[in-house]
Amino acid sequence: MNAALSDRPLWNVLDWNSLDAAQRAQALRRPAQASSAETAAAVRAILEQVRRGGDAALRELARRFDGFAPEAFAVSAEEFDAAERALPASLRAAIDEAAERIARFHEAGAGAPYALDTAPGVRCERVLRPIRRVGLYVPAGSAPLPSTALMLGVPARLAGCPQIALCTPPRGDGSADPAVLYAARRCGIARAFKLGGAQAIAAMAFGTASVPKCDKLFGPGNAYVTEAKRQIAQREDGAAIDMPAGPSEVLVIADAGADPAFVAADLLSQAEHGPDSQALLLSDEPALIACVGRELERQLEALPRAAIARRALAASSAIRVASIEQALAISNDYAPEHLILALRDARAWLPKVAAAGSVFLGDWAPEALGDYCSGTNHVLPTSGAARFVGGLNVASFQVAITVQEVSPAGLAAIGPCAIELAEAEGLHAHREAVALRLRAASARRGA
Amino acid sequence: MNAALSDRPLWNVLDWNSLDAAQRAQALRRPAQASSAETAAAVRAILEQVRRGGDAALRELARRFDGFAPEAFAVSAEEFDAAERALPASLRAAIDEAAERIARFHEAGAGAPYALDTAPGVRCERVLRPIRRVGLYVPAGSAPLPSTALMLGVPARLAGCPQIALCTPPRGDGSADPAVLYAARRCGIARAFKLGGAQAIAAMAFGTASVPKCDKLFGPGNAYVTEAKRQIAQREDGAAIDMPAGPSEVLVIADAGADPAFVAADLLSQAEHGPDSQALLLSDEPALIACVGRELERQLEALPRAAIARRALAASSAIRVASIEQALAISNDYAPEHLILALRDARAWLPKVAAAGSVFLGDWAPEALGDYCSGTNHVLPTSGAARFVGGLNVASFQVAITVQEVSPAGLAAIGPCAIELAEAEGLHAHREAVALRLRAASARRGA
Repeated sequence: MNAALSDRPLWNVLDWNSLDAAQRAQALRRPAQASSAETAAAVRAILEQVRRGGDAALRELARRFDGFAPEAFAVSAEEFDAAERALPASLRAAIDEAAERIARFHEAGAGAPYALDTAPGVRCERVLRPIRRVGLYVPAGSAPLPSTALMLGVPARLAGCPQIALCTPPRGDGSADPAVLYAARRCGIARAFKLGGAQAIAAMAFGTASVPKCDKLFGPGNAYVTEAKRQIAQREDGAAIDMPAGPSEVLVIADAGADPAFVAADLLSQAEHGPDSQALLLSDEPALIACVGRELERQLEALPRAAIARRALAASSAIRVASIEQALAISNDYAPEHLILALRDARAWLPKVAAAGSVFLGDWAPEALGDYCSGTNHVLPTSGAARFVGGLNVASFQVAITVQEVSPAGLAAIGPCAIELAEAEGLHAHREAVALRLRAASARRGA
Repeated sequence: MNAALSDRPLWNVLDWNSLDAAQRAQALRRPAQASSAETAAAVRAILEQVRRGGDAALRELARRFDGFAPEAFAVSAEEFDAAERALPASLRAAIDEAAERIARFHEAGAGAPYALDTAPGVRCERVLRPIRRVGLYVPAGSAPLPSTALMLGVPARLAGCPQIALCTPPRGDGSADPAVLYAARRCGIARAFKLGGAQAIAAMAFGTASVPKCDKLFGPGNAYVTEAKRQIAQREDGAAIDMPAGPSEVLVIADAGADPAFVAADLLSQAEHGPDSQALLLSDEPALIACVGRELERQLEALPRAAIARRALAASSAIRVASIEQALAISNDYAPEHLILALRDARAWLPKVAAAGSVFLGDWAPEALGDYCSGTNHVLPTSGAARFVGGLNVASFQVAITVQEVSPAGLAAIGPCAIELAEAEGLHAHREAVALRLRAASARRGA
């Protein structure tokens, strides 16, 4: 397969202004996301099994998929302690450091309650409440993702969620990944479960004897996890989910002054995630595109996950554009999860960015910083969802409730407006709820 | 049917602490929301017809459902002008007044961009961008809803959305409701379309020659509109939607000092919306419950939509609780769209409210004020979604984009943390994207 791949170009090199509409659409087409009918059916069966069977079903599924079922799914305090001891000091320090920066950035962006009098005697407010029961999923397939535990756990803690459950797949020896456990505990999470896949999502959505039922589920996962979240979000007895999930993607806009090695490294950071990851380069400089192609080949030689990255690159494109302005317009329509502006005056272009998950300005901000420790969240909208939703933040773990407190004087001030509108809409009881209070207030004043 | 109804009690009067778990669940069970298979299939066919056929399909569907097809779906400037002239001055003034208060409340709650250095040389930000293309649906079935045009249009305008489309069903004479048009123009909306039902949702999701394609769709509607939005939100080629929609609902918590006439009027305001509306009363005072029942009967006599309200009440309950504390706990599990605290010390109970769409404190704040003109939004989470989502606000029309700008010194400060975590996660290219920049920065310093 590698031999076959080497016969074909590494990626598609295109000239935007020579493409017709169909070719342009093709160049920006994302890998198909829809689950296969088999995946959907398998997930549907798993959800139903867990909904009806609870812990017994979880044990059966664990035996089927993991080859064994742990005695208890819940991670004990002793296991948390052991995980902490097992971790190298340097990794503990890195998790601590990342958690602090993530907390600082997220805390600064947390919403605040507010109140104002919209009329004399009419006090309107918005209060914020934590979502009471949240469920976090931290994948640990090809590799454990302690960074994801932080990206979910830090804002959940800042939001004040009183009940946080975390599921992560067990390793071959039946234990949970110690770095994930350490990161979870760092966020104040004491309830972790050694559960992976669609059955973990089902357990948090429906609740079992050992896993608490949750109101909203967060976190990335493989095709089964993603499909399970999709199905759960559609059920009346299910739970909400953080956002639609698709394969990860990056779009790099680079000018003639960009460093081809840096650009290539960023594209490979994306491509190594999986064969369906997408990495796009837009540049007004053909020489840069050519240099990046050579750098990709060079860096691929040393990359352990080169085979995965090559498959992702084969479905990716380098596109020559007429101008950086045109690149921004294309990017805004594509709405990438990650947007790297490898431009001499990156800051000046930021106001032109209309839709993206997270933006990396200049040469010294690789996407990997955002993935781990700049402070921003790495759970971001994929598949063009950045057109209408932003990444995870404290508000994702809260509900905003509006409040109104009205005095008789306030009712007198705004009641007639409500009556006029209720009459226009033919809603008599609405009218009367205001009118009878106005009459009562008037009578009490008279009395 | 009225005779049959009169033989049975107006609503269910229950004692919470005499109910078993199943009876409690039954008492709080919402009317079934799931669309019938026929509705789903009909909607699916309409979406497909509009997606393929565009304006021609819209015309055909208009003929089928409205009995005629307008020459143009778009409302002309002349029609907007005529609508304004046709409207009574008092209604124009009420719309203006409501729009101003809604704008004041929503503007105060609009998010702001922010920036901070999470480490020296690491600037992290969140910027806000309007969603570029939004579609608003304003029902006009049993009655036109100019208030909904305001509740959608005001925050869309405050968010700065550059392209706002509004669809509202035509009246019998083929024109759009003048109050809806006046409210729309009041919000700066110039693109309105005389289109209703699932076909309006399809037109805004897919775009046609006359209706622009939208990124996110907002607004309530009948079962077909709701089902169309649900299906659109699931399609890869669709659009996002504001929130899951279900029948409207109110939960009133009243103490012995509450005014039974006020409480009855508020319950009827909810019940008149439709037979599937739900109105719940929780009280620790049986005498109050009895008085409210008598008031309901009395007020129903004068209510034009009494038949609808009676059907809604028949599926609703008055529940005696042991304490207001218990009432709040029940309410938080139910997570009502509207929560009225008809309590002597309503303000003191607010901190106990964990999940609700909008809260009305005390005796002088009927829900109708929030529906029209207190300033809060009336597009609120139904069906228990208040457990995990709040009502419409300016942020619903925006995307938040995170940004990081990093200097070589900033990279030196946080790069090693990223490298440590990338190694723990086995993501070599992520590591290298940081490491090769660190080497390059070091070499440049050395040079």
